Amino acid sequence: MTVTIYDVAREAGVSMATVSRVVNNNPNVKPQTRKKVYEAIERLGYRPNAVARGLASKKTTTVGVVIPDISNAIFAEVARGIEDIANMYHYNIILCNADKRKEKEIRVVNTLLEKQVDGLLFMGGTVTDEHLQAFSTSNVPIVLCATTDEKGTMPSVDIDHEGAAFDAVQRLLSAGHRRVGMISGTLQDPANGFARYQGYKRALESAGLSLDEQYVRIGNYKYESGMEAAQYFIALPERPTAIFAATDEMAIGAIHAIQDAGLKVPEDISVIGIDNIRMASMVRPQLTTVAQPMYDIGAVSMRLLTKLMKKEPVDQAKVVLPHELIERRSVASI
Amino acid sequence: MTVTIYDVAREAGVSMATVSRVVNNNPNVKPQTRKKVYEAIERLGYRPNAVARGLASKKTTTVGVVIPDISNAIFAEVARGIEDIANMYHYNIILCNADKRKEKEIRVVNTLLEKQVDGLLFMGGTVTDEHLQAFSTSNVPIVLCATTDEKGTMPSVDIDHEGAAFDAVQRLLSAGHRRVGMISGTLQDPANGFARYQGYKRALESAGLSLDEQYVRIGNYKYESGMEAAQYFIALPERPTAIFAATDEMAIGAIHAIQDAGLKVPEDISVIGIDNIRMASMVRPQLTTVAQPMYDIGAVSMRLLTKLMKKEPVDQAKVVLPHELIERRSVASI
Repeated sequence: MTVTIYDVAREAGVSMATVSRVVNNNPNVKPQTRKKVYEAIERLGYRPNAVARGLASKKTTTVGVVIPDISNAIFAEVARGIEDIANMYHYNIILCNADKRKEKEIRVVNTLLEKQVDGLLFMGGTVTDEHLQAFSTSNVPIVLCATTDEKGTMPSVDIDHEGAAFDAVQRLLSAGHRRVGMISGTLQDPANGFARYQGYKRALESAGLSLDEQYVRIGNYKYESGMEAAQYFIALPERPTAIFAATDEMAIGAIHAIQDAGLKVPEDISVIGIDNIRMASMVRPQLTTVAQPMYDIGAVSMRLLTKLMKKEPVDQAKVVLPHELIERRSVASI
Repeated sequence: MTVTIYDVAREAGVSMATVSRVVNNNPNVKPQTRKKVYEAIERLGYRPNAVARGLASKKTTTVGVVIPDISNAIFAEVARGIEDIANMYHYNIILCNADKRKEKEIRVVNTLLEKQVDGLLFMGGTVTDEHLQAFSTSNVPIVLCATTDEKGTMPSVDIDHEGAAFDAVQRLLSAGHRRVGMISGTLQDPANGFARYQGYKRALESAGLSLDEQYVRIGNYKYESGMEAAQYFIALPERPTAIFAATDEMAIGAIHAIQDAGLKVPEDISVIGIDNIRMASMVRPQLTTVAQPMYDIGAVSMRLLTKLMKKEPVDQAKVVLPHELIERRSVASI
């Protein structure tokens, strides 16, 4: 059996992103982590280049990737995971952007199928019945990446969005916050919108708090909408002491709106996000957030697709990867 | 003659990005600007949908785009411009990422040509003789986007990198700064590296200052390398009073390193960048920078490619778009 980066990550107890960094000699790895990874590589006999060479002689395989929103910050990281696994198996990747417009998403699915790709990854959008209809015409395998379909009939790799939101709000509640504002995505979006809102609601309820409509604002996932929502919260007679934003980008907008109003994060208002985009460490104070394993979502979905394309047995076609609270400096106790 | 978004932008005296925002009902447009654009649309009889409809009936045309570095922040904005023009002409776009590795860049050019694209955009990388060799095998037109070849034989759309760097450093010199540090890209990179370094040098010389090697650090365009370079500058016995970074991302890293050291931007050290990525307004203080018209670079190169694909006459196959100083809050006078 071929040993993959996935096996090495599991054996070493680290993420696939870390294994990739070690294999590519990236300096941002702690020495003891690097040691663990090398040991796992040795134990398992993992040889990335040998794997690639063995497969390179066969025909060129091309995988199409549909990106519903090219300006979304998580896209580049998920794509990194997809590309690394694709490189390992010497597959070519072609990407199509669909601007979060349903009819264009379906059109680019058809474009990619016409271009005779050998498999398709559909990244991060809402999957409707019309999507399922378009997918059903495909005679090559399709994997959903960073999204799922509601009926759960398609192979997919995603996180538990409701649980991630619950943990984020739980972090604020356990720091003593009782007035927690939420900057939500649209509730029509089942994953980043509705599920994350449900997690907020459940966390409040489990702490015996009731949902107060004035503390929920709907944004569009962008920085500017995070700023606007925070400005609204700041102007309330009883403003929240903490803000949970459904995405990091909105959380960063909230931090800047709070600072621009002459208040301090986290002393006056705490802020927490979800995603752990690169920008979360590029803001002062650095953003506390619940990380999605974006690289792994890309890598695991690509690996799942390679198995489906080669008609290999698949243990689990519906993968839910773990999320993780990343403590930084934007949450204080009261 | 078909009226394009480009004609409307010129008529209204605004950027193509602004016209796109107006046409797409984006709220971030000043009322008087919106009025000017609508007037230009009326005067010229511009009808985006009619144009698209007229062309939609013919065969599907697909354009391949090679992205040398998918994690580069300018990529999404340039891609936006490409997509808008492609949508207008009902062309499909397929993208390939090449990780800034020359052999992969050439491999994906070949993949796209094998997939029978009708034209190719090559975005933002260094164009070597081997690239020109691969391009020469193509029987469809190719346009360089946000880059050029040294010999100037290929159609291309780019800015004057040397001039942009000159203007950035000039801004610091005219504010009274005499010790100006530069965070450069690698000098092997002709555009973002060498040309921007040359602009720095020429600006110093034109102010009668000589280049001091200790004030130049080579980064890798990333946030972290901007931080490291700024930490080095701060530790110098005679530290610079201003820093010019060859990219905004490095400039933002520099701002945070200065702040983390307990100093203030711009009171203690001024910082200026080049690019005007979205993040430049998402940092405190907001970054003063020299903007590349990223959207327009994408839009104009796609428009140039459509002309070449349809064998229409082209006035100018080597387009240099203007850059522009954007005043924000990271530069102070001394």
